[in-house]
Amino acid sequence: MKGRVSLHWKDSSTWKLFKYSLLSYLLLAGLFTMLYSLFAYSRQKDEMERTLYKVHQTHVPNIVDALWITDKQRVQRELDAIARFENIDRVEVRDDEGHILFTGSEPLPDAERRIETLRYEHGDRSVVVGELSVFLDIRGMALKIVNNALLLLLLQTALSVLLATVAALAFHVSFGRPLSRFARFISADEGSVSEEPFVLENRAHDRDELGILVSSFNRQRSATARSIAEINEMNMQLSDANALLRQSEEALRTSKESAEWLG
Amino acid sequence: MKGRVSLHWKDSSTWKLFKYSLLSYLLLAGLFTMLYSLFAYSRQKDEMERTLYKVHQTHVPNIVDALWITDKQRVQRELDAIARFENIDRVEVRDDEGHILFTGSEPLPDAERRIETLRYEHGDRSVVVGELSVFLDIRGMALKIVNNALLLLLLQTALSVLLATVAALAFHVSFGRPLSRFARFISADEGSVSEEPFVLENRAHDRDELGILVSSFNRQRSATARSIAEINEMNMQLSDANALLRQSEEALRTSKESAEWLG
Repeated sequence: MKGRVSLHWKDSSTWKLFKYSLLSYLLLAGLFTMLYSLFAYSRQKDEMERTLYKVHQTHVPNIVDALWITDKQRVQRELDAIARFENIDRVEVRDDEGHILFTGSEPLPDAERRIETLRYEHGDRSVVVGELSVFLDIRGMALKIVNNALLLLLLQTALSVLLATVAALAFHVSFGRPLSRFARFISADEGSVSEEPFVLENRAHDRDELGILVSSFNRQRSATARSIAEINEMNMQLSDANALLRQSEEALRTSKESAEWLG
Repeated sequence: MKGRVSLHWKDSSTWKLFKYSLLSYLLLAGLFTMLYSLFAYSRQKDEMERTLYKVHQTHVPNIVDALWITDKQRVQRELDAIARFENIDRVEVRDDEGHILFTGSEPLPDAERRIETLRYEHGDRSVVVGELSVFLDIRGMALKIVNNALLLLLLQTALSVLLATVAALAFHVSFGRPLSRFARFISADEGSVSEEPFVLENRAHDRDELGILVSSFNRQRSATARSIAEINEMNMQLSDANALLRQSEEALRTSKESAEWLG
């Protein structure tokens, strides 16, 4: 069709809609993941402090008692109990003679070490009986949060692509395609105006912006067709009248000439 | 303007878009909250089992030892330690003489009671020294999950309304309004066709579906205007020719009549 502008898919509003909605969903997902990770981090830190509080309240007195009577088996049991808490890598006790008891793996270089001096208190006396070290697995804690964030981002990216695709398809079916069909319909009879109206495939558009546009167009189109038909009709009448006039003029001219001849 | 269909806001595609996108966001939010709550519930149950495992491994042996030597103070300390775990409402020990030691509030009617018989093992001997009851706050656990779910739903509802509003506004600005303007433009000159083209306010539409529709329309419109102008021109020429013919016919008729008179 002459002069028709063809639509490249990259210029289509469906593609633009897909692009922008995907972008905004991904931005939201990023923001959400960031906030969630910050929240998870602060919760993990609180949890860690609660664990250390439990160790201080529950296990430290038991260890002090056990060290005081040099019950190594009980000290070991308490250390095992502490190591059962989450994010604790290793626990060790050094007694007043320098002997070390421990539970857990070799201390990692980036573990955070919390040290508590163990004192036996009895009346006015306070005797240092040893030192407790708790190694916190900060790296493992951070890794868990990062892994969670990556999983969340992945899920949200999949969801964003899905949502943007659904939105773009819905838009294409209800606007992109009807608009293109409409444009092709208009281009198809450029110059020659018929009274046949354009019909939208989807009845849902009957009273919305697109439906109103189409009905305005169809009304204007049929009015134009009528007025062109009227002018054409008038043209025909004028042509007929012209032909008649020419005929009668010819007749007159002939009869006038014959009259002059006679005269 | 005669016969123009006016747009009710409830029929506009902007409103339909808002409605459907809000609905689908809310459905997604509901689904997400449900999955999240199920996940949180199973995590809480696992956490509970881990806590009970810690109690069994760490505190039960200590309580048995303390009961064996009837060290009530140490039994009490162990009970306090158990009550420090999350979602544990009350802990009580009944010794072999029926005496009860406890930590925590009065047992709630809907608390779940876990009972463990305390046995002192020594070589081949196994002596029952008492019974430990741990009351789990299942109701509090469920309430926490429900509260979390409600907060999540609230946040997501707010986000859904925001997203749907932004989407609807963006759609209105880029499609709803131009389509309505276009329809008004067409309606305004129903019947009288001028060559003045319709211009989209937003240059972003230049090459998309709407831009192509508008340029097809403008081309068809100017072609129609040109052909109407041509037919009108022809009409004028015919009319002029007619007038001339009538004049010359009149002249002929007069000269013919005078010729006949003379003749």
